Amino acid sequence: MTESSAGIDKTTLDPFGTTVVEDYERLYEEFGIQPFKPLLPQMSSPYTSMRRGVIFGHRDFESIINAMKNHGKFAVMSGIKPTGEFHLGTLMTAREVIHFQQQGAIAFYCIADVEAYEDNKISFERSEKYAVGNVADLLALGFDPRRGYIYQQSKDHRVKDLAIIFGRKVTLATMKAIYGERHMGLYISALIQAGDILMPQLEDFGGPKPTVVPVGVDQDPHLRLTRDLAFKFQKKYGFVLPSSTYHKLMKGLDGSPKMSKRAPMSYFTFQETPTTISKKISNAFTGGRPTAQEQRKLGGIPEICPIYEMYMFHFFEEDKEVVQLYHDCRSGKILCGEDKQRLIKIVLNYVKEHRKKRKQNIDKARKILKVA
Amino acid sequence: MTESSAGIDKTTLDPFGTTVVEDYERLYEEFGIQPFKPLLPQMSSPYTSMRRGVIFGHRDFESIINAMKNHGKFAVMSGIKPTGEFHLGTLMTAREVIHFQQQGAIAFYCIADVEAYEDNKISFERSEKYAVGNVADLLALGFDPRRGYIYQQSKDHRVKDLAIIFGRKVTLATMKAIYGERHMGLYISALIQAGDILMPQLEDFGGPKPTVVPVGVDQDPHLRLTRDLAFKFQKKYGFVLPSSTYHKLMKGLDGSPKMSKRAPMSYFTFQETPTTISKKISNAFTGGRPTAQEQRKLGGIPEICPIYEMYMFHFFEEDKEVVQLYHDCRSGKILCGEDKQRLIKIVLNYVKEHRKKRKQNIDKARKILKVA
Repeated sequence: MTESSAGIDKTTLDPFGTTVVEDYERLYEEFGIQPFKPLLPQMSSPYTSMRRGVIFGHRDFESIINAMKNHGKFAVMSGIKPTGEFHLGTLMTAREVIHFQQQGAIAFYCIADVEAYEDNKISFERSEKYAVGNVADLLALGFDPRRGYIYQQSKDHRVKDLAIIFGRKVTLATMKAIYGERHMGLYISALIQAGDILMPQLEDFGGPKPTVVPVGVDQDPHLRLTRDLAFKFQKKYGFVLPSSTYHKLMKGLDGSPKMSKRAPMSYFTFQETPTTISKKISNAFTGGRPTAQEQRKLGGIPEICPIYEMYMFHFFEEDKEVVQLYHDCRSGKILCGEDKQRLIKIVLNYVKEHRKKRKQNIDKARKILKVA
Repeated sequence: MTESSAGIDKTTLDPFGTTVVEDYERLYEEFGIQPFKPLLPQMSSPYTSMRRGVIFGHRDFESIINAMKNHGKFAVMSGIKPTGEFHLGTLMTAREVIHFQQQGAIAFYCIADVEAYEDNKISFERSEKYAVGNVADLLALGFDPRRGYIYQQSKDHRVKDLAIIFGRKVTLATMKAIYGERHMGLYISALIQAGDILMPQLEDFGGPKPTVVPVGVDQDPHLRLTRDLAFKFQKKYGFVLPSSTYHKLMKGLDGSPKMSKRAPMSYFTFQETPTTISKKISNAFTGGRPTAQEQRKLGGIPEICPIYEMYMFHFFEEDKEVVQLYHDCRSGKILCGEDKQRLIKIVLNYVKEHRKKRKQNIDKARKILKVA
């Protein structure tokens, strides 16, 4: 019993804190998240992260597959907390949103500035500055604003009003069970997020429809709250319970279990200098052995390596490249230094190209957010 | 110790429930409400309810006296929960608001439709219908919309945004201590009320200024929360801590300690028929004796009599009339039947005149609330 209790502790999901997910399999049993893999054969061209198991779980994703197959209406909704510049985590979500938009979804991208205020004490003025950059990043990645809606929570009255409407059916016990004992602002921000997730189904946006929310698995608590609310307000609004996909959280470059803003060496943003980015990758923890000799002999351990993860999560376009690297690493054919140098080149090139496109989209981002 | 604990129980103030205030004096000690009487000599022409002790307590009312004396800016703010028609309780608050408006205050009158939704499950559509009538009542009583602002909580983004901003500095422990364990919607509505009370001090309305909130004493919890928030956000907004005046709660006509919508015989609305109103007054509990003979001999007890209260709280314009009735009752000169018949005449006449003016103001009310 003790072991099992300890296990539960390790997989407690907290969207507002640091999450350590040591065993994704366990989430299936404990939280009712469904494994994604069995769905792959039903999809004609599953997205890269789905094929690679980066997206490992879901809720009700079948209804999205059906909508895609039958060319039915569906929506994708996710967002960013505007507390800083784009990094690999926000990149992952943004790409997923864009993927579903390209598959025919009407796309919603939320700038969660109320959450940034309540959870991170970022003033609305400050978060708006980040938001402009974040939206330019999103546009640079290919988000099409003509078939999507980008908004700030603080400025969209619909999501705030939904929070007020939902509040009546949320007990304190529910909030405490999901989020722990937090201040009122955090609870309000959670209800506004439920509003974010269900807004695509309001009449303003064509009424009820399947909606997929691609997020990191640490965001699942919001989904549980929102699905419960969608059910409770089904009669009034006709809500379809929202679906979700869950991607794994990237390991920190410093060897920590998760990239975190609190540990600057664990991640980099796209606005850092090439020198800094190179340095962070060079100094990264790897799955390598203490000496080159040992590594040639025993091979590396890609399973624990954040460098390997970066290739797999983001920087190899072809699956076969990932497989090749895996074998080269395990067999001792490639050493960590060489592997890092190659990654640095790819990343710096990617960042350079991305920043160019981002710059071209800054004015458009200002316009979308109505920032002077 | 047991006795004193029981005493505290009896004076627990709950704006969302039924309050029994057996001993107003006790509020001074337990909640820090100040007695109003000592302020009377400082005022050139105190309002009727102040002179008669109906307004018995306050917080920081000195700053309002100063503003009135020095012709300084000040505001008055109160409102109504749109769950039904005007009655003697809402009349009292409305008259107080109008009194302060006539004394030079910029006046705010809030239609608390979010509270009606969260606390009374009244839909926004339904509360809007009541709101039109309530606003027409307010205008009929003399509220001047050119020097005031009438609004619905659900439609004013400033009060909702203040709630979101305030939320970060309100712990769950604070909410539970003030309001008990309630659902999230009720807590949100309480934060919006803090927004209502502090909105008069936003730049949109000329910035920080003393604000008086005239309310029934059962509303004091909102004042305590709001004064705390005004202090916490003083640096950001320059808030002056809001002042308040407290009026006593009227006894129910049926002899219950408080008029309540849950007990239809305890009160009447201005939209009931003359027959119904007459009947409710005729059947009312009084401070009279079992027989006329006894009453002639011993006199009545005005202190416990809701009929006496109606004269004193509302329907005698001159203080000397109140004093006369008090003596006539105590001396046995007037009997309850006679006393009730006189009141019925006065009330029916008042209601008739009021409804005429109300009718003339319905269109104006619709316009103010932007209702089609």
